[in-house]
Amino acid sequence: MAKIKACVVGLGNRGYDIIRGVLLKNDDIEIISVCDVYEDRIARAAEKIKEAGSEPRGFMDYKEALAVKGLNAVFIFSDWSSHTEIAVYAMKQGIPVASEVGCEYSVENCLRLVKTQEETRTPYMFVENCCWGKEELLATSMARKKLFGTVVHCSGAYAHDLRNEIAYGHINRHYRFDNYLNRCCDNYPTHELGPIAKLLDINRGNRILTVSSFASKSAGLEEYISTRGDATEEMKSARFAQGDIITTVLTCAHGETVLLRLDTTLPRSYSRDFTVRGTKGMYMQDTNTVFLDGDEEF
Amino acid sequence: MAKIKACVVGLGNRGYDIIRGVLLKNDDIEIISVCDVYEDRIARAAEKIKEAGSEPRGFMDYKEALAVKGLNAVFIFSDWSSHTEIAVYAMKQGIPVASEVGCEYSVENCLRLVKTQEETRTPYMFVENCCWGKEELLATSMARKKLFGTVVHCSGAYAHDLRNEIAYGHINRHYRFDNYLNRCCDNYPTHELGPIAKLLDINRGNRILTVSSFASKSAGLEEYISTRGDATEEMKSARFAQGDIITTVLTCAHGETVLLRLDTTLPRSYSRDFTVRGTKGMYMQDTNTVFLDGDEEF
Repeated sequence: MAKIKACVVGLGNRGYDIIRGVLLKNDDIEIISVCDVYEDRIARAAEKIKEAGSEPRGFMDYKEALAVKGLNAVFIFSDWSSHTEIAVYAMKQGIPVASEVGCEYSVENCLRLVKTQEETRTPYMFVENCCWGKEELLATSMARKKLFGTVVHCSGAYAHDLRNEIAYGHINRHYRFDNYLNRCCDNYPTHELGPIAKLLDINRGNRILTVSSFASKSAGLEEYISTRGDATEEMKSARFAQGDIITTVLTCAHGETVLLRLDTTLPRSYSRDFTVRGTKGMYMQDTNTVFLDGDEEF
Repeated sequence: MAKIKACVVGLGNRGYDIIRGVLLKNDDIEIISVCDVYEDRIARAAEKIKEAGSEPRGFMDYKEALAVKGLNAVFIFSDWSSHTEIAVYAMKQGIPVASEVGCEYSVENCLRLVKTQEETRTPYMFVENCCWGKEELLATSMARKKLFGTVVHCSGAYAHDLRNEIAYGHINRHYRFDNYLNRCCDNYPTHELGPIAKLLDINRGNRILTVSSFASKSAGLEEYISTRGDATEEMKSARFAQGDIITTVLTCAHGETVLLRLDTTLPRSYSRDFTVRGTKGMYMQDTNTVFLDGDEEF
């Protein structure tokens, strides 16, 4: 089989780490084109790829990066706000797309993605790594074997203390700063919703009927910054729109409820809090527990 | 100090257990009147009280029970649907009330309780034992000492596998059967909301602004009954209105969100899942964890 000739757009933490940890370790893939809006990131990624024996061309304009002849795929790891534009353009060029999550800000643009895919028939993959999480795969496999009986409720969270990354966003060139400054929403639901959607057969017979979201006040980032001796004036004067905890409840056509939580600006340990509840048992990631029905009442 | 002369209405599991485990162990209290709609329960309670040296009068009509001269208090442990009627009547007689939770079905009747108390000035106490739970008291004390910083979110649950008690309700004379057959709601929110309301100063400066509840489908009880060899025809033909998991989100005037869960008809271990989230730390009952902020990102 000929190698997949790939373009990588977005060479920050996520893009660089996946080049190093995944793509360069895969003999079926050759990276022939890389793109970022920062020159030093292009140089760093190109250097790493050269070490592995290939010589990619570097670009600051994604359209030029996608014009390199012979591309079979583009991996998009750039700023959230740019995913759709790049993906739509690539599909129109006939270049298959793998797009990192944190994807889109409006329903209109989601529809644009879907319609472009349907019109062009270019493959598009929304890349949600937690669908391959060990615990999520275990719980989904148990659910499919009916070990939990009828599943009636699932919950999960993106619970990750990102205060440092967000607060220093303009220093470390991370787009989350502007998002948290100006938006209030569950900006990253797919870590938990991806695996839950598979488990509940969403869009495979089942579907989401209603979405209801609730935001707590925003206090975590501002209090965090107030304790940092090295905070800039811009950081100190920032008033963040993003609530600390976003609680979202979904109801599904087959009667299940789904509870999601965005939880990224308060102190805590990392967790996806993946939970499956059924008539014969439950799975609970936070305590690493499987509970199967017995004859006892507790 | 003279002894409190008490009437106990409702002598089922909760009433009998509190007589035996709490009231009879308190030298300041003498039970002089007991009431239930079942004669055998009256006899059982009277017998237990006699063993402790007192001779209560027994009644099947609560108005007669409350007419016993010299009463200083009534404890109400009867069927949920009867609490308001008995409490309002007692307050009008000037008899102070302690009422068990699972209290009222309508806003109108809640207002009736409040107005009767305000008009009569008779003391009324809504008895929520979990306000004195060790973990809830610990977390509340830590919150008041500002160890969690600004509290922005709390959650909790009444997570208790009651399938046996509910399904056999007409056999064991438990009112939950009819409730689960005909209602769909969070029928028991105070185990978690009581302590959370204290912690968040609800009605002490803060207040609840919105209440939004979501029900999953109802599958737990019917599947449970289908596995029971001794199920009656009435149990087998029951189609329960009550959803298995009720998720409720509250928003508060001071910007906090509160998440509640009723979770009583699926297999699980007991939990109240009490969780407090603040800008400097968290408390999590399910894992028995206190997490206080450090300088590390995880």
